[in-house]
Amino acid sequence: MDSLKEQMEELGRRAKDASRALALLSTDNKNRCLIAMSDAILAAEKEILEANCLDVENGKKMGLSSALLDRLTLTPARISAMADGVKEVAALPDPVGRELDFRVCPNGLELQKITTPIGVIVIIFESRPNVTADAASLCFKSGNATILRGGKEAAASNRIISKIMVSAAQAACKEFPEYAIQVVNTTDRQAVPELLSLTECVDLCIPRGGEGLIRAVVECSRVPIIKHYKGVCHVYLHENADFQMANRIVLNAKTQRPGVCNAAESLLVDESIASDILPFVARSLLEKKVKLYCDPKAESILKRALPQELTSEYIFSIQETSWDHEYLDLSLSVGVVQDLNAAIGHINRYGSGHSESIVTNSEEAAAGFQKAVDAAAVYWNASTRFTDGAEFGMGAEIGISTDKIGARGPMGLEELTAYKWLVCGKGQIRE
Amino acid sequence: MDSLKEQMEELGRRAKDASRALALLSTDNKNRCLIAMSDAILAAEKEILEANCLDVENGKKMGLSSALLDRLTLTPARISAMADGVKEVAALPDPVGRELDFRVCPNGLELQKITTPIGVIVIIFESRPNVTADAASLCFKSGNATILRGGKEAAASNRIISKIMVSAAQAACKEFPEYAIQVVNTTDRQAVPELLSLTECVDLCIPRGGEGLIRAVVECSRVPIIKHYKGVCHVYLHENADFQMANRIVLNAKTQRPGVCNAAESLLVDESIASDILPFVARSLLEKKVKLYCDPKAESILKRALPQELTSEYIFSIQETSWDHEYLDLSLSVGVVQDLNAAIGHINRYGSGHSESIVTNSEEAAAGFQKAVDAAAVYWNASTRFTDGAEFGMGAEIGISTDKIGARGPMGLEELTAYKWLVCGKGQIRE
Repeated sequence: MDSLKEQMEELGRRAKDASRALALLSTDNKNRCLIAMSDAILAAEKEILEANCLDVENGKKMGLSSALLDRLTLTPARISAMADGVKEVAALPDPVGRELDFRVCPNGLELQKITTPIGVIVIIFESRPNVTADAASLCFKSGNATILRGGKEAAASNRIISKIMVSAAQAACKEFPEYAIQVVNTTDRQAVPELLSLTECVDLCIPRGGEGLIRAVVECSRVPIIKHYKGVCHVYLHENADFQMANRIVLNAKTQRPGVCNAAESLLVDESIASDILPFVARSLLEKKVKLYCDPKAESILKRALPQELTSEYIFSIQETSWDHEYLDLSLSVGVVQDLNAAIGHINRYGSGHSESIVTNSEEAAAGFQKAVDAAAVYWNASTRFTDGAEFGMGAEIGISTDKIGARGPMGLEELTAYKWLVCGKGQIRE
Repeated sequence: MDSLKEQMEELGRRAKDASRALALLSTDNKNRCLIAMSDAILAAEKEILEANCLDVENGKKMGLSSALLDRLTLTPARISAMADGVKEVAALPDPVGRELDFRVCPNGLELQKITTPIGVIVIIFESRPNVTADAASLCFKSGNATILRGGKEAAASNRIISKIMVSAAQAACKEFPEYAIQVVNTTDRQAVPELLSLTECVDLCIPRGGEGLIRAVVECSRVPIIKHYKGVCHVYLHENADFQMANRIVLNAKTQRPGVCNAAESLLVDESIASDILPFVARSLLEKKVKLYCDPKAESILKRALPQELTSEYIFSIQETSWDHEYLDLSLSVGVVQDLNAAIGHINRYGSGHSESIVTNSEEAAAGFQKAVDAAAVYWNASTRFTDGAEFGMGAEIGISTDKIGARGPMGLEELTAYKWLVCGKGQIRE
């Protein structure tokens, strides 16, 4: 048995070799493989459910929470959605080979900047086994070899899904390189640092999961990473906000799906309208059982305006939490700010650079907010919940980045490409 | 005295705050600052030379090599070139605020993808003090705050140059944030890991220097890095190569300036033409005193074709070095390959992903090479020496990347930007 280091090196080398072949696959061949993968996933429903059953039983023995068990569990409907997802990726345009720039130098050299695959991408993720199919198909369509490292609780499911995809693609296209999609087979935690030290083989790591997982990956990696630590998104109600619209947006941003990264975690309100709009919005939020963690001004306004039986249950001090807290549940930080600049300052200080929204009828205020707020997506009069590959028209996403290098915001197929310069000459040399 | 950690945190915080103000500076104001910086550098020639003199004297005491001392030394001509460089950056178009994409979603949301500054960039470099002015002006023009960490041998020069630039900009424009350009004042080696652990403040690190420096930075960093480890560039002479052109390109790529990263380190020749073209090219190389480290086939061809007094001095076995070696001097690896595919395989295995060139009259072979070779710049019938920001029409470069994330190849102003999505709605919420 090879050492862990040797195993990971072999995985990396195989992926690198596969990536060379992938870069040469035609769009037609890639799509043929994806359609075959999708069909094979559907056809292997029984096999997948059996493997998943093992994982779920183990998970129960390991004492996983019911939320985790739910994420882990596959059903015929979920398998069918997974297969559909892969087929949708086949239908998306090939992001490789697109011309980004063309220039002719004074010496006659012709420069063409074209998109290429990135190479080898390591995906690290937690329990959901559908990530295996989603991530592998997006990476494959963009010409990248994938090394998948899922949670150990989903090991059997991840293994069978990738195996089915690889076999189907091999049968569909003889140029499909066997090691284009690989799963890390060991559950040894040391596998991740070993893998992410392979600077010669691994071009990018995309970790998906909670902040703890992401920080651990960043800590040990020697290869580039694209990630987001967390989503602390704000909705800011400017003094010229339409009250009804403000109410609708805050409610949607906070409650439509509170457990996701583009849900709002913080509400800021201009002082000049706070005593009117805060109670109005708070009533809707309280109906949805949202707890409000308030600064002193907001707390005093709400305690004056709302009946005591409600405030005692739903109104708390921000001191019990913090402005940069990601609740991921029905809780919201609430602050009163002096003006637009104070709101921008607060958001740039406490936000996570994910999605930020201003509600206002003032075009000038909106423009100032959109220019100054430093985040992947800056909204004017819309819910933060739209930061998503599908909503942005990318078709599918592999994740969302709050980094500024490589990709920012939703990452679809285009964000899984790099570029190179093709330089054509007639014998030019440098003087 | 604060601890090193606290000092670095303060540096980072100040840079982050400055970056907020920089993002709002108008193009006119940025250019006004740059012109003032340039003028001030020229005007302070005497002061700069005095500080540099201190560094050079210290360097002599420290026993620096004459090559290092040369890089360290400033002269009136070099100071003038530095000032010109800053003025040229003023003349380049502002890379911030450019629209990269615009889409309207089915729900009416308008999405605009626009370029933004990256934020805070740490530049780590070795002896040349002119990097201070070059890097700071490029980062400033692209709206980024810079933290500069030069070699300790250039400490006094770097400090005075940045001080002059900051004072001049402050006098020229009251919105110029004082901490837009900072120099790390301690020579403590631990400063780098401290600085590069500030994931909240530092958005990017660009290390410039030898492979050892780059690896040390990668080892300790928790923030994104764009870099190149080394430049192992190949020239490949395909069987359809024009001999005269091949000779000219090989000579230029190897000897025009052997100490730089885009110089050729390896020559590959198709077997079918090797016994004709190799001696022809080798004669020119030997005239320039280039040592050739050959595989057995190349060695035997050359030993047969060239007089023994030359071969004993200039022809060696590749076993004395290695295919991935970066000579940076008048040495060249030489190999005979079976065909195009073998050349591509060799280059993808041993190259550093920097600049690779094929010499051929076959359009098909060139296209195959440009598609399959995985490098920042892939040339057809031109010298690898052109991989350079100025040659590529970017005006100036802060470095060259062999990474595939964020930037690849020469990095000019555009490569110092990120982007964000501005989303404009009319109250849309997610259903």
